[in-house]
Amino acid sequence: MSRLESVIRRLSAQRDILDRVCADMADIPGPVIELGLGNGRTFDHLRERLPGRRIIAFDRVLGAHKSSIPPEGDLVLGEISETAARFAGINAALVHADIGTGYDDRDAVTLTWLPQLVESLLGPGGIAVSGLPLVHPRLEPLPLPDGVPDGRYFLLRHTE
Amino acid sequence: MSRLESVIRRLSAQRDILDRVCADMADIPGPVIELGLGNGRTFDHLRERLPGRRIIAFDRVLGAHKSSIPPEGDLVLGEISETAARFAGINAALVHADIGTGYDDRDAVTLTWLPQLVESLLGPGGIAVSGLPLVHPRLEPLPLPDGVPDGRYFLLRHTE
Repeated sequence: MSRLESVIRRLSAQRDILDRVCADMADIPGPVIELGLGNGRTFDHLRERLPGRRIIAFDRVLGAHKSSIPPEGDLVLGEISETAARFAGINAALVHADIGTGYDDRDAVTLTWLPQLVESLLGPGGIAVSGLPLVHPRLEPLPLPDGVPDGRYFLLRHTE
Repeated sequence: MSRLESVIRRLSAQRDILDRVCADMADIPGPVIELGLGNGRTFDHLRERLPGRRIIAFDRVLGAHKSSIPPEGDLVLGEISETAARFAGINAALVHADIGTGYDDRDAVTLTWLPQLVESLLGPGGIAVSGLPLVHPRLEPLPLPDGVPDGRYFLLRHTE
């Protein structure tokens, strides 16, 4: 499979998972955390699906399209492992992390801190959606929506 | 429609159009020109669909994933409007241009030189596939493959 086909499947899985999560999220209080704003496409999708919900976005540097830049106070720039750690305990309803690089060695370094960070940001019952697999004792994998193949995008729930 | 949904549709249209073109290209001699290597995903798709065909890729700077970098001699870096112009008359079978920025004002500047450049690179009967609309008297719009919506990606043929 070409990398073009692969990214189409990955983005489609991302959309399908986020749509399911957003539809079920009315009863979970708390903000949404976007780790890796990037171009801002997912941020744009989340604010469309979750009107009125605060979304705080993090990135190393600002690379978003001007139409998809969060309002002042909801954008935090700098090393995500450091900046987002300051928000531990915020009791987020949803943490979405799309910070894979496509390089296994770099992603392995990210995975030394990302699961713990995501866990620390989520409130009880909060949902994690991630492009990298998160393994943590308090993050329970959930079944994916119908039609989403395993292994492209990951869905978990904070268990306490 | 969110920008996430929009990019999924745009990449799907790109894939569907390129797949149709590649399937029909056996009788058109000449190299493939990729204007805007970017991450290299489309380059990866084209080399998978067109084994043995020379693909020359252009970009301002190298931003591709290491798995999708063309071999030496087939990657030309620098301002595309200048570097690719030196290849005018190469009689390409296919020119694929994915250099839209998402900013109308910047894309309008690109469109002051892109149609003429694409026309100069193509051989007779050669195919242009573009993310920006190309208007040129010797580039004839072709019908899109079934299922591809109008206006997301463009398909044309050199008429002489």
